[in-house]
Amino acid sequence: MKNEVRVFAPATVANVAVGFDILGFAINAPGDEVVARRVDTPGLRIKTISGDGGKLPYEVDKNTSGFAARCLLQQLGKEESGVELEIHKKMPFGSGLGSSAASAAAGVMAVNALFGMPVSKAESLHCAVLGEQVADGAYHADNVAPSLLGGIVLIRSNKGLDIRHLPVPAELHAAVVYPEVSILTKDAREVLSPTVSLQQSIQQSGNLAGLMVGLYEADYALIGRCLEDVIIEPQRAQLIPHFRQVKKAALEAGALGCSISGAGPSVFALCRGAATAEAVAASMSRVFREHNIPNHPYASPINEEGAKIITA
Amino acid sequence: MKNEVRVFAPATVANVAVGFDILGFAINAPGDEVVARRVDTPGLRIKTISGDGGKLPYEVDKNTSGFAARCLLQQLGKEESGVELEIHKKMPFGSGLGSSAASAAAGVMAVNALFGMPVSKAESLHCAVLGEQVADGAYHADNVAPSLLGGIVLIRSNKGLDIRHLPVPAELHAAVVYPEVSILTKDAREVLSPTVSLQQSIQQSGNLAGLMVGLYEADYALIGRCLEDVIIEPQRAQLIPHFRQVKKAALEAGALGCSISGAGPSVFALCRGAATAEAVAASMSRVFREHNIPNHPYASPINEEGAKIITA
Repeated sequence: MKNEVRVFAPATVANVAVGFDILGFAINAPGDEVVARRVDTPGLRIKTISGDGGKLPYEVDKNTSGFAARCLLQQLGKEESGVELEIHKKMPFGSGLGSSAASAAAGVMAVNALFGMPVSKAESLHCAVLGEQVADGAYHADNVAPSLLGGIVLIRSNKGLDIRHLPVPAELHAAVVYPEVSILTKDAREVLSPTVSLQQSIQQSGNLAGLMVGLYEADYALIGRCLEDVIIEPQRAQLIPHFRQVKKAALEAGALGCSISGAGPSVFALCRGAATAEAVAASMSRVFREHNIPNHPYASPINEEGAKIITA
Repeated sequence: MKNEVRVFAPATVANVAVGFDILGFAINAPGDEVVARRVDTPGLRIKTISGDGGKLPYEVDKNTSGFAARCLLQQLGKEESGVELEIHKKMPFGSGLGSSAASAAAGVMAVNALFGMPVSKAESLHCAVLGEQVADGAYHADNVAPSLLGGIVLIRSNKGLDIRHLPVPAELHAAVVYPEVSILTKDAREVLSPTVSLQQSIQQSGNLAGLMVGLYEADYALIGRCLEDVIIEPQRAQLIPHFRQVKKAALEAGALGCSISGAGPSVFALCRGAATAEAVAASMSRVFREHNIPNHPYASPINEEGAKIITA
């Protein structure tokens, strides 16, 4: 048993154009770090939070990471153990990159690692999803599952967390740009019509099923054709300044497809090869910069590891 | 080059619960037969139609099979050749089993085979889809493609016929029952709401993507969980007498899942193993029989061959 662990949980891209609320994947950076340390006083406490600009609560009940960590302590029958957490936010809030999910995933991973991984990551997922629910209000795993478990994840149903890892084609890379504009998840939800036309739903279904085939067959051209969101993106694009131009730049730089990451404002593209992903991230970043919008480009393979210990 | 060929094109189950307008698979029986024969008089003629109760037109332009066959003759540059067709309907109209699609598939297959298969089945698909359009009014391949090509087919998009074969798990069998009640495709379409709730669309998407994973991984339990249509079946079930009871009987007899075949009234179930499919077909048939509805049960592996020559 360790006295202290430091873990990292990565940012994630949810929805993936045609899998609204059911698909997500992890990237290598950015991400959050959480330190868990054994102390004498029984119970879980949050000792330090950094990088949040003072916004996150220290009350365990109200803190995504703290709630998730305590949930897992209880699951392990260790709620009488003394554990303190340091939460180091190293990614922006409200970015559409699963910030609260990464904190929740890091919270359970830190506690699990501190006790020598008595349960699998998959067995700790429920607590991580409950943790994110503290911030988000909803029990859904499309960011938390890939942040904790890595890879490209299908959430068939949040009920019972019926989730599956999808194959990751060897050359599949992601380009992601976070522009510093503010969109609340709540607003991004409210802009969505509660109904979808049957015709759009058929078209989106064809693309979703085609994306599954593309991933299983490592058919990059098919993946590209299928990354066409006819339902959500047309409604949310207005919330992201210059989205059309950013998307056009991504496609011109060789992206297979490009859409909104989660609820935005981050924009992601899937690409074939690391060099293309770098070029695509740079092109998207340039459009925002030309409009004087500070932004943060990332290029990454699909992160298949998920949350991990970074020092023992 | 042959002087005469006889071909068979199988019945198909479209929609497959969660793939409305985008999924279909072929079964071994029933199906239609078409004979193509070389004659001296140039052009294509329909010589005989049997099994249709006098309902089908002899005008090539208005006949699904004839239109498809002539389209392929033109594609082959053989429109000046003399060809006569015999069309033997061996499956019911309006059954939800792709009757007109089977005739169209058999039409192109007969002409292609008569000339020694100068083009692949896939290359002849466009003409078969145009043929079915004569009967159906719409250009869509969810019945025609599996009838012609066999297997489980995804129609990602009808535009450009962007279609893919999905893996067929070795033990996957179908049970199908056609009850002799009348539903017009037009009525089955009109009962459908033009919109879908976003929540239902998310649930259906999870099941569709999960079904893809189930087929690729040969995960029968997952396939079963995913055969839950929350959009179309609740609207169309009312058109099929005793549907709920038939479905219950299928599931109690061991079906993985059960729903409406195409626009109905046929009901299909997917099953693990031939014996289970036989038992499920018998159970579903029994329910209709107990309500004095004449019906026709079929049990079959997924037909991976599609349209085929049955005599040379």
